Amino acid sequence: MDIESFIKFCEEKGFFYNSEEIYGGKTGFYDYGSLGKILELKFENLWRNFFLKLYPNFWEIEPSEVMKDVVFKASGHLELFNDPITECKNGHRFRADKLIEETLKIKVEGLSIKEINEIIREKKMLCPICKSELSEVRLFNLMVPAMIGPEQDLFLLLEDYLKSGKIDKEELLESYRRFKENRYFLRPETAQGAYVNFPIEIIINRYKLPLGLAIIGKAYRNEISPRNALIRMREFKQAELQIFFVSNEFDELYERVKDKEINVLLVRDRERGNDFIKVKLRDLEGYLPKFYLYFMYKIQQFYLDVLRIPKDRFRFYELSEKEKAFYNMYHFDVEVYLDSLGWIEVGGIHFRAIKLRREDLERIGDRELREKILEIFGDKEEVIVGYDLWKHLIYSKNTNFIVNINNRKVLPIELELSFGVDRNIFSILWVLYDERSGILKLPPYLAPIEVAVFPLLESKDKHVEKAREIFEELRLSFIVYYDDSGSIGKRYRRQDSIGTPFCITIDERTFEDNTVTIRYRDTKEQIRIKVSDIKEFLKKELNIYFLEDIVRN
Amino acid sequence: MDIESFIKFCEEKGFFYNSEEIYGGKTGFYDYGSLGKILELKFENLWRNFFLKLYPNFWEIEPSEVMKDVVFKASGHLELFNDPITECKNGHRFRADKLIEETLKIKVEGLSIKEINEIIREKKMLCPICKSELSEVRLFNLMVPAMIGPEQDLFLLLEDYLKSGKIDKEELLESYRRFKENRYFLRPETAQGAYVNFPIEIIINRYKLPLGLAIIGKAYRNEISPRNALIRMREFKQAELQIFFVSNEFDELYERVKDKEINVLLVRDRERGNDFIKVKLRDLEGYLPKFYLYFMYKIQQFYLDVLRIPKDRFRFYELSEKEKAFYNMYHFDVEVYLDSLGWIEVGGIHFRAIKLRREDLERIGDRELREKILEIFGDKEEVIVGYDLWKHLIYSKNTNFIVNINNRKVLPIELELSFGVDRNIFSILWVLYDERSGILKLPPYLAPIEVAVFPLLESKDKHVEKAREIFEELRLSFIVYYDDSGSIGKRYRRQDSIGTPFCITIDERTFEDNTVTIRYRDTKEQIRIKVSDIKEFLKKELNIYFLEDIVRN
Repeated sequence: MDIESFIKFCEEKGFFYNSEEIYGGKTGFYDYGSLGKILELKFENLWRNFFLKLYPNFWEIEPSEVMKDVVFKASGHLELFNDPITECKNGHRFRADKLIEETLKIKVEGLSIKEINEIIREKKMLCPICKSELSEVRLFNLMVPAMIGPEQDLFLLLEDYLKSGKIDKEELLESYRRFKENRYFLRPETAQGAYVNFPIEIIINRYKLPLGLAIIGKAYRNEISPRNALIRMREFKQAELQIFFVSNEFDELYERVKDKEINVLLVRDRERGNDFIKVKLRDLEGYLPKFYLYFMYKIQQFYLDVLRIPKDRFRFYELSEKEKAFYNMYHFDVEVYLDSLGWIEVGGIHFRAIKLRREDLERIGDRELREKILEIFGDKEEVIVGYDLWKHLIYSKNTNFIVNINNRKVLPIELELSFGVDRNIFSILWVLYDERSGILKLPPYLAPIEVAVFPLLESKDKHVEKAREIFEELRLSFIVYYDDSGSIGKRYRRQDSIGTPFCITIDERTFEDNTVTIRYRDTKEQIRIKVSDIKEFLKKELNIYFLEDIVRN
Repeated sequence: MDIESFIKFCEEKGFFYNSEEIYGGKTGFYDYGSLGKILELKFENLWRNFFLKLYPNFWEIEPSEVMKDVVFKASGHLELFNDPITECKNGHRFRADKLIEETLKIKVEGLSIKEINEIIREKKMLCPICKSELSEVRLFNLMVPAMIGPEQDLFLLLEDYLKSGKIDKEELLESYRRFKENRYFLRPETAQGAYVNFPIEIIINRYKLPLGLAIIGKAYRNEISPRNALIRMREFKQAELQIFFVSNEFDELYERVKDKEINVLLVRDRERGNDFIKVKLRDLEGYLPKFYLYFMYKIQQFYLDVLRIPKDRFRFYELSEKEKAFYNMYHFDVEVYLDSLGWIEVGGIHFRAIKLRREDLERIGDRELREKILEIFGDKEEVIVGYDLWKHLIYSKNTNFIVNINNRKVLPIELELSFGVDRNIFSILWVLYDERSGILKLPPYLAPIEVAVFPLLESKDKHVEKAREIFEELRLSFIVYYDDSGSIGKRYRRQDSIGTPFCITIDERTFEDNTVTIRYRDTKEQIRIKVSDIKEFLKKELNIYFLEDIVRN
């Protein structure tokens, strides 16, 4: 399937479409339409019911999307969250790394700005649009500033200047300086909300570890080249779970699953040309911590058994030392194979932790703070701590980050399970849509329309009347679509294409024995059941009866 | 109850707290904590299950939060969505209208800037903080700009100026001009997303009217004086349903309920000193359209029967001609009484429609567009059309706004049911928390923790073991809290205060006959049931079995 016709399909069916299409659309923004939103909600709820149930003390929170700059000073985003961009004299702008990857088909992840510049010069790369020269690469911060309250002063000033044509230099620079001092940003990832709230939530949750804080919500990035619809957007949705713990609390859970297999592509296996290899968890013991292996297995279960992604389209992709961020001790991407688009990152599992030595504490000027932190060392020379908790502890000097567990002071480590909601929705639709048969093979519990109701003959009043009666009765308990236009075959095909698992048809026999036909989407099998049994049938068929068992095992 | 101790209660229990508290908090932003988020999600789901079920063709969509300025040019927000502000020479800034209302206890809604300025001068009002003089009132646009992509050019320029100390005037003004041409904003209300997507969704939904488009999501306003925690925030959540229709499609539904009573305060009754009067819907026929009355009744049902707000704390408040926006033909606020805070607006029902005459069309320069629009007049001299659809039709020239219904061209009218999610959460907590008894009397289906499990004696291993076993079994199907610390009375009180409707205790008898006690929160009644019956008991008790009936009747 090519991406253009797939996107067209999704737009026409109401899964997603360009934002503000009537005004020419806008790049890097998509809306969920009437069907897509139901799919998205069902995905969110499955995610919640799966990941938040993995351990008793996992909770969802909802931090604000607009955050103060101090959060991103602490997290490093203000300094480090940049893309290398280059532009030509006609104003065409590109992400230098992506341009090189696409033009020259070489990997540049991990290269420095200097190295990227050298490649552009050596290979004499030009603007792919107008063939003019490309500028030196510079860094472009990816965060989206949001102008809250007094920040607008700068604009009031500029507005005055524009009207009067006069500029007061000192006034302008002073206003810009004030503006910079107290900026707000739209969060570039949901994660920071969990880190800054850890000291509050650990008290609310009565100092119990492990503690999990999940956030499902929007994040924003000034992507230079948004593309592939939901795959790379400027406004997107994440579902992230931050797990805070001490060390081996998940080992017991790991023991139950250690003989299971996962699909993984390790750095050392990349050269072999395989997409992935299947490996038993216990064969990776030592290479990866037990807690990490346990959650890898659970993530794979979510994709294969809950979302029903075919097994050979799923893998964990290990990032090399050079590719991964310095604060990730272990970093695997979660990837789904989308044919012509290749393997697409839909999530990640990040052990965000750093090694801290006693001598690292000497940099801390605040003596009281330093001594508090020293307590987490006990008699050890080095400890492993959560990277973000550490950064925010240092920045905020809030010592509630340090938790007292069994008379031992700890700064918890962090395991992040991170998912791009939109990329997952896109992947589910891509993988489960069978272009040849025209059937969207969603599991019943993910289908936007749960059941359709048809009168066999649109022309017969009593068929229509009875069908509408059944529709009215069902629609309060299920998501139901009523359709009486076009041939019955056409109506079936319409429902097949949006993944409706069941179609109910009212025909002559309905008036004889009070039964209807129910047609199964994938097998096209038809059964007759009593009108009075429809609700029970649907409740059973749409139920994710096995979810609890998957979580448990 | 005073608001400070109420907010403290909500913070300590994990309902909500200041955003980025560790960095001193930020004004006008609150986060939902681990308990509050569950309550919020349950509220959202109730809202969906109630309002989207009111008619077959009502759908939820999810438009982006960042929108292009053209949307707000069309909607009028760029020009009209302003607050009057005044400031003193020390930089203290106030909303002039609120300052007058609070200082002088007079209503100023609907007054012009000139009139507000006169009041400040006549009454010699001073800055309430430093007692210095207040400036002339000026208008401050409430939308929050978001800097997407190339917009950052202006900042790169300012950054250069700051470093070099030199400013290039022409370059700066040109950059600012470009910046202004193509701005993005965080939406100040969710509604616009439904209006701009109407032409797409009406096709996806095969030209069926009425069509309902709901949006639950964040909106942002540069509030000058955020206050009262969730009541007035800069980032907040709305749940809005836009209903597009022709005229009398809801009359039949109205007929079923016309004998019901609603609590309403009409403009003409304000002087009488009542908070509201009870009036039968049919006694308002003629004064308000039938569709409007029908949805008023449904909204009241949602508050009284679903959220369980006591009847005398709920009312519809009519806005006067001067108070309501010109594009609202009818405008009532939905209000809940919060004691010391007074009546608080938690929603609104807005008939957003304007009268259009043939001669109004003469202003339209585009002949083709004008002739298309003329078709909606048929042989009439004036028609009523949806205000926002009209504005976006004119701005975008997209004639898909005009729908062909039974061989008649129409531009649908709009009824907006609008709710502030956070204000509703705040009100529910305020109204249902009984400070005297320490019980949060949430209906069971709204409770964040659905059931708590205790061993009677923390010291007895077998009690603890059995309690944990039951907890582990229940927590996959319900939201369960395990607690074994402190006396049993203390544990009950802890659960009462967060609204947990049921507490299960494992005691000696559990080991004799495999039963546990279940305690009801409000009555403190205790019953014994078999361990094997717990799940069925909870399913029954937590179910909103009556919701379908409420929607139906």
